[in-house]
Amino acid sequence: MKAVRFHAARDIRVEQVPEPGEPGPRQLLIRPRLCGICGTDLHEYLAGPIVTPTEPHPLTGARNPQILGHELSADVVAVGAEVTAARPGDRVAVMPLVFCGRCYYCVRGLNHVCATMAAFGLSWAWGGLGELAIVEEHQVAVLPDALSYVQGAMVEPAAVALYGVDRGRVRPGDTVLVTGAGPIGALTVLAARAAGAGAVYVSEPNRVRAALVAGLGAADEVFDPRACDVAAEVRTRTGGIGVDVAIECGGSAPALNDCIRATRKAGTVVQTGLHTRPAEIDPMVVAEHDLTIEGTWCFRVRDWPRIISLIATGSFPVERVVTARIGHDEAVTAGFDVLVDPDGRELKVLVEVGA
Amino acid sequence: MKAVRFHAARDIRVEQVPEPGEPGPRQLLIRPRLCGICGTDLHEYLAGPIVTPTEPHPLTGARNPQILGHELSADVVAVGAEVTAARPGDRVAVMPLVFCGRCYYCVRGLNHVCATMAAFGLSWAWGGLGELAIVEEHQVAVLPDALSYVQGAMVEPAAVALYGVDRGRVRPGDTVLVTGAGPIGALTVLAARAAGAGAVYVSEPNRVRAALVAGLGAADEVFDPRACDVAAEVRTRTGGIGVDVAIECGGSAPALNDCIRATRKAGTVVQTGLHTRPAEIDPMVVAEHDLTIEGTWCFRVRDWPRIISLIATGSFPVERVVTARIGHDEAVTAGFDVLVDPDGRELKVLVEVGA
Repeated sequence: MKAVRFHAARDIRVEQVPEPGEPGPRQLLIRPRLCGICGTDLHEYLAGPIVTPTEPHPLTGARNPQILGHELSADVVAVGAEVTAARPGDRVAVMPLVFCGRCYYCVRGLNHVCATMAAFGLSWAWGGLGELAIVEEHQVAVLPDALSYVQGAMVEPAAVALYGVDRGRVRPGDTVLVTGAGPIGALTVLAARAAGAGAVYVSEPNRVRAALVAGLGAADEVFDPRACDVAAEVRTRTGGIGVDVAIECGGSAPALNDCIRATRKAGTVVQTGLHTRPAEIDPMVVAEHDLTIEGTWCFRVRDWPRIISLIATGSFPVERVVTARIGHDEAVTAGFDVLVDPDGRELKVLVEVGA
Repeated sequence: MKAVRFHAARDIRVEQVPEPGEPGPRQLLIRPRLCGICGTDLHEYLAGPIVTPTEPHPLTGARNPQILGHELSADVVAVGAEVTAARPGDRVAVMPLVFCGRCYYCVRGLNHVCATMAAFGLSWAWGGLGELAIVEEHQVAVLPDALSYVQGAMVEPAAVALYGVDRGRVRPGDTVLVTGAGPIGALTVLAARAAGAGAVYVSEPNRVRAALVAGLGAADEVFDPRACDVAAEVRTRTGGIGVDVAIECGGSAPALNDCIRATRKAGTVVQTGLHTRPAEIDPMVVAEHDLTIEGTWCFRVRDWPRIISLIATGSFPVERVVTARIGHDEAVTAGFDVLVDPDGRELKVLVEVGA
């Protein structure tokens, strides 16, 4: 079958690989339909292996070359004897986290930070960019008729975005700043709206992305942090107070500091973006402003059905962040290579698996 | 009357000042009995004016030379016509915050971050290191018989410490790391115990302070951060996991990073200590470990009665942090000058006002 595999930095190949065998008693065989390319995949492409295992993963045994893809919708082809969560023919979204279920964190319901965490499409034998894949029963969520394959492929990044909004405790009517309008930032704007935010401001230095996020129609204003003092602008628009919640999706130190400075006293800053370098902050401001800073990792697994339900209501139009659909064979040339361009014109690119 | 007044950096004087007149209808005239010297007072002494006003304070009109002292127990001498909270002869602790009651924060119950905040003993005409003082009715809390004057003078710093424990959401049985064992750090150790912490670890580079906090008998172990990797030591003692809550009371960047590294995933770091410089942290760890960082400012005013009640039960023996009682005339020589010595041998010094 055809699959997109990571071999090394700048070496991702669309190639033929063996098909999976029969699913185990609590596993399913699925046929991915649409699969997004994620920032984590791009980090592997540029500087990997980072997350993909060079030695057999302690939980899953997976190792490079790794089939990529962990944002996907799929059809169920076959199910193991003990599976009750889905039937052949069902359409599903795949929750990519694979956890041990027995460590300190898993037994406390914190399986999103499992001590030996693996992930479908990163450190599991199969991935969403292969024509067939095996998944564990706990990883599939049946899509209601209201959700398209496109929306199904967006559940995973939507879960990341909504987790930031959750951790920020955004309430209806709250003012929100989102820094960084990549796919997660754009989804965070939509998630804040879905949570009833009263005003949503965005900071994004890339003009193309700024225009794309403005085009969603969900942000009140989009600022260029190179052209203005974002915190001062936000403060002007909030009666001199600052926003209730700022969500940092850019992974940059200046953006984090803009969030800290733009948030009202006793407000919340959420760190959703992944930073590759240390950042200097002023802990005196964090104390004096009685701030809360929430670091977020992935999402809570238990929230998966809730997110599907929220998308189904129409209040979280995640499909609007998709800017391109490309063929399987083009995954590298029209996907990875386009997305790593700092002046790139795409937000979320979906691969039509098998097409 | 005699009072300790701040004039300028390194210029604090014990001198004669006019007595206050009659209290207003919702004010009280009090006679301070014991008053602690706080880190904020020491910052004024070393590098002030920082908090004390050089121009009339917008809320209170106070300006330097400022009578210092905001950690005090007192006797009520006289009360205004409308005062119902206390009667002459009552013993009281003074909640030092003076707030406008009308700003964005005050109307939301967040008067500890009032937009024009002032404080008794820092930016109010009177202070705890004067023989008499005027306070607002909302600032007095009558001490039950179970509380001594010493304990009464410790309510304010105890409130700061307990607020850190509150914001850390320390639960009975939780493991806690406290970095920095000055008066607030030592009180935080006791507050964590009062909250039922299962194990409390301390990091303190100053040997004298390390010995003093160990002498409280409330910490399981005291580490020297110059001699070991505190995060690694804490991890070893918590099954490789890390503490549930780390509370930074030292105001230093290395201590903050020790807290971030020593806390388990999905745990909480509290920033209670006041930093005078920016600090470099790793936001990737904050995100990847799903951490919460809570900056704390002062305390919640509404918690004041609760803290008095907690001290009265005996489970929060705040008086044990007091290492010296000195006379009023000695406030500078045996108080400020001793406390600013980096090798100082005292934790909390109380001044016997009028003695």
